[in-house]
This record gives sequence, C-alpha cells and structure tokens, in this order.
Amino acid sequence: MSEKRMNPSSFPTTSDLQSSIGFETLAYRHGVLRLLDQTKLPVETAYVDAQTVEDVARAIETLLVRGAPAIGLAAAFGMAIAARTKTPFPEADARLRRTRPTAVNLFWALDRMRGVWSSDPQCPVDPERLEQEAQAMFDEEVAASLRMGELGAELIPDGARILTHCNAGALATARFGTALAVVRAAHAAGKRIKVYADETRPVLQGARLTMWELMRDGIDVTLVADGAAAHLLGRDMVDCAITGADRIARNGDAANKIGTRGVACLFRAHDRPFYVVAPWTTVDLSLASGDEIEIEERSSDELTMFGGRQTAPDNAKAYNPAFDVTPAHWISDLITDRGRTGRDIAAGLDILSRKR
Amino acid sequence: MSEKRMNPSSFPTTSDLQSSIGFETLAYRHGVLRLLDQTKLPVETAYVDAQTVEDVARAIETLLVRGAPAIGLAAAFGMAIAARTKTPFPEADARLRRTRPTAVNLFWALDRMRGVWSSDPQCPVDPERLEQEAQAMFDEEVAASLRMGELGAELIPDGARILTHCNAGALATARFGTALAVVRAAHAAGKRIKVYADETRPVLQGARLTMWELMRDGIDVTLVADGAAAHLLGRDMVDCAITGADRIARNGDAANKIGTRGVACLFRAHDRPFYVVAPWTTVDLSLASGDEIEIEERSSDELTMFGGRQTAPDNAKAYNPAFDVTPAHWISDLITDRGRTGRDIAAGLDILSRKR
Repeated sequence: MSEKRMNPSSFPTTSDLQSSIGFETLAYRHGVLRLLDQTKLPVETAYVDAQTVEDVARAIETLLVRGAPAIGLAAAFGMAIAARTKTPFPEADARLRRTRPTAVNLFWALDRMRGVWSSDPQCPVDPERLEQEAQAMFDEEVAASLRMGELGAELIPDGARILTHCNAGALATARFGTALAVVRAAHAAGKRIKVYADETRPVLQGARLTMWELMRDGIDVTLVADGAAAHLLGRDMVDCAITGADRIARNGDAANKIGTRGVACLFRAHDRPFYVVAPWTTVDLSLASGDEIEIEERSSDELTMFGGRQTAPDNAKAYNPAFDVTPAHWISDLITDRGRTGRDIAAGLDILSRKR
Repeated sequence: MSEKRMNPSSFPTTSDLQSSIGFETLAYRHGVLRLLDQTKLPVETAYVDAQTVEDVARAIETLLVRGAPAIGLAAAFGMAIAARTKTPFPEADARLRRTRPTAVNLFWALDRMRGVWSSDPQCPVDPERLEQEAQAMFDEEVAASLRMGELGAELIPDGARILTHCNAGALATARFGTALAVVRAAHAAGKRIKVYADETRPVLQGARLTMWELMRDGIDVTLVADGAAAHLLGRDMVDCAITGADRIARNGDAANKIGTRGVACLFRAHDRPFYVVAPWTTVDLSLASGDEIEIEERSSDELTMFGGRQTAPDNAKAYNPAFDVTPAHWISDLITDRGRTGRDIAAGLDILSRKR
C-alpha cells in the first residue's frame, strides 16, 4: 500500500453526484482504491492507495476503512481489483469475507459482485463489468444516504439536541452517512440542532471521526465520554439519539458499535426516542433475531494500550466485543432508504421488504 | 513535593490494624503525608511526600489522591500539616475546601478538624491534637471499610459475576475500599466471584486502579469498555453491580463517578441489583435530593488528549462532568458502616441516621 498526503479534491470524484463533504472516504480509479486513512484522523488527513486484494482486506481489518456501508463498497472495489490483478475470484472473495464478521453489507456486496464474476465460468470476465457494478453500488449508496437524510430529518424538530454514538457519517459510507445524513439534512433545512458525540471507546470513532466530520460542516457538536449519556438525559440536555447499524435482523434487532444497546436502553428509560438509520443493504432478513448475529471480538490491546501507552496492568484480562445488539423494542423508528418502519420495527420491515 | 520510588512496606503503617493490601494509599508521619501517586498507576508505583497545605491541595486537584473517603483523610492530614508548618488554619481550611466540590467527605473531614483548631481561638493548638484527630478518622475509616465489606458480602452469592465502575477500592479509601471491600470480603469468605471492571473514561480509574488492586489480590477481574455493560447484561454475563458514592442526599440519590447513573439504569432495566457502598461520612442529610449536589466539571483536555496525544480535532468542544447522580429508585440497597438501608433507601437512611 502506498501512502499519500494530498488534497482530496485533486483526485477526481467517482460519482456524478457533487460532493458537499469536501473529502472522499473511498474512491476507485483504474485498479486503485484510494482510501482516507481513518486511523490517522483527526490529526492527519492521509490517503492510502490499495492496489491488491490483500491491501483492501488489511485496510478493512485494521479499520483504515470502517462503517458497514463503506466496508461493503471497499470489498466490492476489492473484487474489481481482483479482476485487474488477475487474482482468482473465489480466492479474493474468500479473503474479503474473512475480514470482519458483523456488518452484513460486506457479504451483501460480495454476493452481488459474485453475480457478475460467477455468471459464466467458461467466459473470462471483463474487469470493466466488475468496476461498473461496484461503481453502481457506490452511486446507489450515495442516493440512499440522501434519501435517508430526507426521511429522517422529518423526525428532527427545530432546536433538537441529538446524541450520536460511534461514526455513522460520510466516513462510514460512500458520502453523507446514515445517522449523520439525517443530521446534515436537518441542518441543511435550516433547523437549529446541537449534537453530542459519544467518544465511543475503545477506538474513539466519535471523538476522532464524528467530531472531525461535523466540525468541518459547521454543525454544533460537543464531545462527551460514553458514560455521560445518562447524565445528559438526567439533566434534560438531549432530546433524541440517532445511530447507524451494522446488521438488522428480521425482528428489528439491530447490531451496532458496542455501547449502542446501552444508549437505546437509557433513552427508553428516560422516555426519549432512539432512532436507527441504515440503508436497506444492512437489513438481513435471513436472521430471525439479533441472537443470531455474530459479534466480532477484537484484540484486548484496544483496551489495555493507547497510542503505545499502557492503560492497564501487565497481563490484564480484557473482554472487547466490538458490537452489541439493540432489541427492536428499544428502537423508536428505523429509517431506511426504502422508508421508515415506524414504531413496530418488525412489521415495518416486513412491509418495506415487499417494496420495489 | 518530593517524589520517592520505594517499597511501601519500608514506611511504617499508620494504623494498628494490619494491612492485607500490601500498599498504603496515604500514610502520615511527622508532618509528612506520603501519597501513592495514582496518576502513575498501573505503570509505576511511586510515592509523593506532601509537606505543605498547598502540596496536599494540589494532590487532590490533580487526582494524585482521589476517591471520596481518601480525599477526606488527605484533607484532614492537610490540617495537621498546617499546624506543623504554622499555616493559618482558616487559610489552610479554605484552600483545601476549594479543591473539589462533589465529595462530601472532604467537607465533613474539614468540619471535624475545625472542631479541634477553632475550639479555643485564644489558645494555641498543639499540632499533635490535630494529628491525633486525623489519625482517628483514618482508623475509623479502616474499621468502616471492614464493616461495609462484611455487611455487603452477605448480598453476594457464590459464583456471582459483579460489575464495578470507577475505583471504590483501597486506593479510594484508607484501606480495603467501599465497593471493593465487599468484593474482598466475599472473596475472603471463599465465594467464587468474577469481577468486570468498567475502564471508566475519561481518567480510566477502572483500567488503571481497580484492575491493579484486584489483580494484586488474586481476584478474577476482566477489563471492559464503559459501553460494554449493556452487552454483558444482554448476554447474561453479570449478576449485579457494586459502586461507591461521593455524596448521598437524604432521599437516597447518590452522586458518583460519571457513568454510574447509566450502569444503575441498565441494571434496573435488566432486573438485576445495583448496590451502592459508602461510609456514613458520605451521607449528606443537609441535602433533600441529588438535584442539590454540585457536579464538578473538569477540563475538556481529559477527553480531547490522551498521554500527550490528540484524540479529537483542534478546537473541539467537549463537556466533561466528573460525576452524575443516580436516583434512589435505581439503587437496590445502600451498604454503609451503620448498616444497610434495604430497598427503600430514604427510609433506611432515616432509620440509620438515628443509630449510635
């Protein structure tokens, strides 16, 4: 992987839709997937060029690119790179599937790419077909973000104080985000909003990424420790919570970054809405409930070390689940690009699943 | 302040009670208050000698010594140092009162010391009288820890899996702790227990201090991110939560480290007990409810920097309340050295207040 420090605007945009974001989370061109290195934010804005399937796989594993929709798109472009580098498709597909287990978008994207490369085993696949398919997914993702923003913003009153957890923004998607697409749309509609960003331990996606994105957009955002959510509720400082999701089961249970389940429970206990925003590609109708969602466990180093500095005693045991599952009954509404489910998430998903 | 790195056992213990802890959080002798520097744990075990009132005040402000009971004792010894260094008592008293606002033990201890130094303004006070009073408070605190441990351990079944937040251990008290005195007593009684320690952002008292203490005692302890509590509950991995407190109002509302309110709410929502353990000196009957407890706000640097490394964008706004208030109705039982309140915390406090 080669690393570049450059102005992202000097790299051509990959979509006909004009970016209002000012950076590209991921952009593909001529066999190269350029990724904004999210492990370096907010201190440094650096881009990394992934040129092999292994580059893409490692970028996903090391959280250089993260967020369910963005992971899916990176994997799709990874299959285009497989075609360009003449990596056998089944091998590339298997490698990319092994990177992270929880976000269903990864598997959805690779399934869709498989539809292209495995269509006629006798016939060599034109790399351009795979590139077109991945790019189409990228463009659909941007359109989905805009649609979710529009639908979700209807739920946000003027003056709303919004808590968000992790990063469900442009950095987690092709552009605009999921939860943060709603925030951006409400802001763009002239609503005065105030955002509280949970720092989101252990990887600090809230402190590093959500703060960076929203400050760039001139949206009023304040960082808080994850443990401060109940205090904000107790002191009447927040009106609603909005998060993304990594996988949503048929009954509406939603896996998302560790800590989300707690936020949802607290908002329910304080009688304030908790909204989930996710593209339809995050819905996994093959799973009856959240109990069936595999939860990734990451290295204990994420808890016991910080920036090379030790934060726990030598040989400390640590348990580091990267996700948790929020039961559907704590979700007030689920906003997808196909529409909103309303309060009964399972019933709403059933109706939306028959749409289009 | 002079800094020493030494074996704590070479410094005489300050109490006739034998320590089973192997370190001294604070120990006074001949005008010197030796403090275990908690900002350096768990990487380094270093002691600092406070020799002036200003030394003691700064040690409290910088969290070199922390935890409501330990802060109270440090301030009491600070007044003994005032006598030794001929610092005017009202000035020393005022300086120490300004250090931190939330823990009532600080004010309780200074009030008690005032009873000695202000008893006869015409008559010079013998420094030994102040030293004896502070040392008596220390010894009473150790006895209170042992009593709380005994009373609380009755609530802990064999095989219990216990979540704790922040550090309410030997490092927060004279010795043994409050919440961790219960853990230690249950362990000493031969009960097989498993502890999960919330890392407790932003200052990481759980990761740095609770892990260090319990690992030294050979108690099974696992570090988790603050956001993981709801996941542990959802997966049936914890049975109860135990924390300390910094100030408890007449109606049973309890202020404690930021994040505690959320833990209490989650345990109530999952129908598991949440216990608070605190010496009677933490009860403030002058306050009708938790709404009247002043919540300290600390520097936003605690959230935006870590070990000299930037974790949020330049000029990021951060809100950093150091404490929150848990309403009495989320507390399953309050264990004090005077006895347990039972489920109705306010009624129990009323009964206990008339005891002894």
